[in-house]
Amino acid sequence: MSNNPTVTLYPLINYTFGTKDAQPEEDPSVAARLARLQNDYAVTGMRRTVEGVLVVHEHNHPHVLMLQIANSFFKLPGDYLKPGEDEIEGLKARLDERLTPVVTGYNNTSTNQDWEIGECLSVWWRPNFETFMYPYTPAHVTKPKEQKKIFLVHLPEKKILSVPKNMKLLAVPLFELYDNAQRYGPQLSAIPHLLSRFNFIYEK
Amino acid sequence: MSNNPTVTLYPLINYTFGTKDAQPEEDPSVAARLARLQNDYAVTGMRRTVEGVLVVHEHNHPHVLMLQIANSFFKLPGDYLKPGEDEIEGLKARLDERLTPVVTGYNNTSTNQDWEIGECLSVWWRPNFETFMYPYTPAHVTKPKEQKKIFLVHLPEKKILSVPKNMKLLAVPLFELYDNAQRYGPQLSAIPHLLSRFNFIYEK
Ligand SMILES: [Zn+2]
Ligand SMILES: [Zn+2]
Ligand SMILES: [Zn+2]
Ligand SMILES: [Zn+2]
Repeated sequence: MSNNPTVTLYPLINYTFGTKDAQPEEDPSVAARLARLQNDYAVTGMRRTVEGVLVVHEHNHPHVLMLQIANSFFKLPGDYLKPGEDEIEGLKARLDERLTPVVTGYNNTSTNQDWEIGECLSVWWRPNFETFMYPYTPAHVTKPKEQKKIFLVHLPEKKILSVPKNMKLLAVPLFELYDNAQRYGPQLSAIPHLLSRFNFIYEK
Repeated sequence: MSNNPTVTLYPLINYTFGTKDAQPEEDPSVAARLARLQNDYAVTGMRRTVEGVLVVHEHNHPHVLMLQIANSFFKLPGDYLKPGEDEIEGLKARLDERLTPVVTGYNNTSTNQDWEIGECLSVWWRPNFETFMYPYTPAHVTKPKEQKKIFLVHLPEKKILSVPKNMKLLAVPLFELYDNAQRYGPQLSAIPHLLSRFNFIYEK
C-alpha cells in the first residue's frame, strides 16, 4: 500500500528516433476543437482521453518525452478514445499511431515491442465546453464534458520511435517542467509532482 | 497496475474536534530550524520527515485537513522521524501526538481507532541547508539533506480528533488549494494533482 513503486529508466541514447508522415491537427483552432467536443458530447456523451508519460534519463535525472508542434505548444502522446474503447488498449493504439515506425517490407521492427502501460498518474476533468481542465471534478459538476487520464508508460531498454514530420519529440528534464506552468501549462508542469512517488532506477 | 485506487470519504460532520495543550514550534525561526537541520545532519545524516493527508468531504468535494499555526502558515500533520524509525509506525506516532485526544480516566476513546496509513502521494527533497524543496533530487545532487514523504491517511467513518490550542484544524477544499501556491506553498497546492488518480466514494 504505502510502498514506492520501482521503475527502471534507461538513457535517452538507447532510443532511436526516426520520422514519418505528418499528422496534422484534427481541428484548425481551439474554437473548432471545442465545437467538435460539443457535437460529439451530444451524440456519445463524455469524451475520454488518454495520454502517456514516457520517461528516460540523462545523467540520472528523469526526462519526459514530449511532442512539440509547430515550434510552439507541447503535448504528451495520446488522444481521445472511441466510445466504449478500453483505455489501456486504446492508449497503446494511440502510441502506435503517433510513435511506432510504419511497417514496410524493408523495415526491421524486431527491436520494437508492445507498449507497457503502467500506473495512472493523474485524472483531469473538463467541466464545461471550455479550455479549462481541473485535477478534480469541481463541486456541483455532475456532467463533466471530458475526462483525461495520464498514464506512466514503462519503456523497454531500447526502442525505435518514429515521429510525425510536423512534430518534434523532446526529452524535457523534470527540473525544466517543475513550477513552469507559464511555458508548459498546468498539466505538463505537474508531472514532476506526479512522478515523485516513484523509486527510479537509472540503468546505464 | 493501471487501476485507480478507490478510497471512501466521509462528511466533515462525522468528525469531532476537541482541543488539547499547545504544542509550540520546536524552532523559533527558519534560520534556527535550518541550523538544527545542519547539526542533526552532521550526527545522523539525512533527515526523514513524514506527513499525512487526511481527506473528508463536504457536498461531495474532497477537503484536506490542515493545521494553521498562529493564523498564518498552513501545514500537514506529521514531523521528522528518529534515526532508524519506521516511516509508517513513525507517522502513526506523529499523528497521535498531534491529533489524538489525551487519554484520561474520564475520556471515552472508544470511537478512536488506529491510523490507517495509505498510499505514498509524493516525495520531496531538500538538496541543501536551505528552505527550497523539490519533488525530485536535482541533477548531480547525491547527498540530499532531507527527504519528506507525504502519505494518504484513510480515515474511518468517525473519529475524535484533538487539536493543540495554538493551532487550528481547517478543512480546505481542493478547489481552494489548486493553483494557489502563493497562499499554500508548492507542497500543499500540489495535493489536488496528487489526489486526482484516486476514485473517491462520497459516503453520507
Ligand atoms: Zn549534467
Ligand atoms: Zn514495468
Ligand atoms: Zn456547495
Ligand atoms: Zn483504507
